[in-house]
Amino acid sequence: MTNTTVTAPKGFRAGSAACGIKAGGALDVGVLVADAPCSAAAVFTQNRFCGAPIVVGREHMLSGKLRAIVVNSGCSNVATGRQGIRDARTMCKLVGDAIGTPSGQVLPASTGVIGEFLPMDKLTVGIEQAMRSLSNSASAGKRFVRAIMTTDLKIKQACERVRVGRSTVTIGGCCKGSGMIAPNMATMLGYITTDAKVPPARLRRLLQAAVEPTFNRVTVDECQSTSDMVAIMASGAGGALGSKRAEASFTAALLDVCASLAYQIAADGEGATRVLEIVVTGAKTAADAHAAARAVAVSPLVKTAVHGGDPNWGRIVQAIGQTAVRYKPEDVVVRLGRTVLFRKQAPTRQLDKKKLAGLMRKKHVTIGVDLGAGKASDRVLTCDLSREYITINADYHT
Amino acid sequence: MTNTTVTAPKGFRAGSAACGIKAGGALDVGVLVADAPCSAAAVFTQNRFCGAPIVVGREHMLSGKLRAIVVNSGCSNVATGRQGIRDARTMCKLVGDAIGTPSGQVLPASTGVIGEFLPMDKLTVGIEQAMRSLSNSASAGKRFVRAIMTTDLKIKQACERVRVGRSTVTIGGCCKGSGMIAPNMATMLGYITTDAKVPPARLRRLLQAAVEPTFNRVTVDECQSTSDMVAIMASGAGGALGSKRAEASFTAALLDVCASLAYQIAADGEGATRVLEIVVTGAKTAADAHAAARAVAVSPLVKTAVHGGDPNWGRIVQAIGQTAVRYKPEDVVVRLGRTVLFRKQAPTRQLDKKKLAGLMRKKHVTIGVDLGAGKASDRVLTCDLSREYITINADYHT
Repeated sequence: MTNTTVTAPKGFRAGSAACGIKAGGALDVGVLVADAPCSAAAVFTQNRFCGAPIVVGREHMLSGKLRAIVVNSGCSNVATGRQGIRDARTMCKLVGDAIGTPSGQVLPASTGVIGEFLPMDKLTVGIEQAMRSLSNSASAGKRFVRAIMTTDLKIKQACERVRVGRSTVTIGGCCKGSGMIAPNMATMLGYITTDAKVPPARLRRLLQAAVEPTFNRVTVDECQSTSDMVAIMASGAGGALGSKRAEASFTAALLDVCASLAYQIAADGEGATRVLEIVVTGAKTAADAHAAARAVAVSPLVKTAVHGGDPNWGRIVQAIGQTAVRYKPEDVVVRLGRTVLFRKQAPTRQLDKKKLAGLMRKKHVTIGVDLGAGKASDRVLTCDLSREYITINADYHT
Repeated sequence: MTNTTVTAPKGFRAGSAACGIKAGGALDVGVLVADAPCSAAAVFTQNRFCGAPIVVGREHMLSGKLRAIVVNSGCSNVATGRQGIRDARTMCKLVGDAIGTPSGQVLPASTGVIGEFLPMDKLTVGIEQAMRSLSNSASAGKRFVRAIMTTDLKIKQACERVRVGRSTVTIGGCCKGSGMIAPNMATMLGYITTDAKVPPARLRRLLQAAVEPTFNRVTVDECQSTSDMVAIMASGAGGALGSKRAEASFTAALLDVCASLAYQIAADGEGATRVLEIVVTGAKTAADAHAAARAVAVSPLVKTAVHGGDPNWGRIVQAIGQTAVRYKPEDVVVRLGRTVLFRKQAPTRQLDKKKLAGLMRKKHVTIGVDLGAGKASDRVLTCDLSREYITINADYHT
């Protein structure tokens, strides 16, 4: 089996353990360790009640160097005050001590219920166990992803190999994220490894550019998590991005990895049965395009209609009408797939409802909105809203 | 039986009919007719793809005079271009002709599916029939409310009698609204009648003041309707608001009617099993207080947790953290009922989860957030988010 996980790039090992934070013996501790300190970059949630691991993680990222990442699932260590900060530091120290690295080179993360303290006795045992299981095998990489999952039903990973100069470098990525997903900087836990050689400042620039059109364009429920981040580590064990052309290839591959992971998040949104892609064109500015796409993507009425395969497209118009985006109503055109539904403030005559219902029932539904006000465009991914979302979230905690 | 409907104030009759726009012979046309032209005021939706009846209604309200209101349910006449405008005018003309009034003194409204043309043949018959059924009885008033309902499960009405000087005036109100409810000017169809004598400009001022803290503080799904309005007609057949004291009494009674109707909307929100009241105190400005309250009220994660009676209060903190509202995280206090959950960035020790779950399972759940940043406060009403909301909206159209 070809390794397509985060351990595919040279220089990385992953480990995991089940320490009892999650019920039923599920994996709940993951560690990702590089053979040597890596160039690294990360983006973090903008939620102001961010978790303790975010506070500590931001501090640790200042150096632009990482040796390891440690994650637990089942408890997010958010809204936990000073005790939470101490616990996040302890997580880093346990990993740092085990590999003889300052704990400042370890990035911590926790995901799960907000407002509870980490059970540090269990977690200490779990981290020790995870460290003992370190391996660069594909199965270790896959188990790492399972260890960071919460309500995710599917493992989310992506891998690209790309020629840079005379060598081939690999990018491996994974993420977790299903609910509490909003299109704002860092919307889930995402970890990317590469054996390309890229200095920290450049890596940060490349990561931000890749995150913006991918992870920052996914919404499940427009709830911005308190815990989330995307981090990348570059071991340099593969090859350097010497030429402009090599950097362009690498950039494209990194974008592909992020786009694939972002799509997987939308497809595995809590309770999702379809992916919904909103494409807005003809906006006056990029901000307008984004706002319009987002207005449709967050509408529970649009999302439930898509869920039911109900061609109730008037709700798309309603959502656009609610925004402050600049357009003249008479210029707006709304499409479902390639079918024009609405133009000149009226429905297209002879709309075939059965055909529309069919378009709404696809695995991937595309809604197009042309605002007729300019040349800017944007695209947001989301999923339908189902009873299952309610079931998952009404009983998550208990 | 005392009449507590919109026909309770002197000078109003209501009529209704079932003309086949709604399935199963349900009432779908309502008319509310005053014995003589009334002083009137209305507020309308701010959605920019507003329906044809809104366009026509705004025009008709310029005079500040109304003789009648005509409403159909089952089809909203929104996104219907010029044909829609013609149809809304026809509705007014049919009523105006029947009572010998210019159609400019008739306020039209339509509610239901967006993007379909009104079946004018059926509706013409329905309006004629509704006009023949006009009566000032309580049952006629009640049937009018049923005629304007869409996904509402309950009839929503409120009535107050108030002493002004030597006479007693009556205010009767009714509304429909269950989904597509957002806290923005005019969130449903609401009709208020009174036999007090109040000139149009004053009536508009009083209506706006009453709508702001009531209808504009309810959200079900944060979707702003394209059709909605609140209108008031004052027949003057009761008494005038002579003194300041009389006006104050009338204002208070009008506020009570609106507050009662708004509460009934939250309680009958699509799929609702509980009312959720978010009270924000200690905000720097009124706008901050409103934004914070609204952030919690629109969170599907908070709303599903309340639905499940799951004391997952960390989601309240998450929602507040997502806003741009000014506060220091360490000053924020979160309460459920009277129980403090979160203070100084950490959970209160010894939180009894069973007790919290009990508080979450009440018919009326109050979430308190003190931002510790100033003296402004606000309050938003919403409901829990249940599987039933999805069921209703996934299959609404078909």
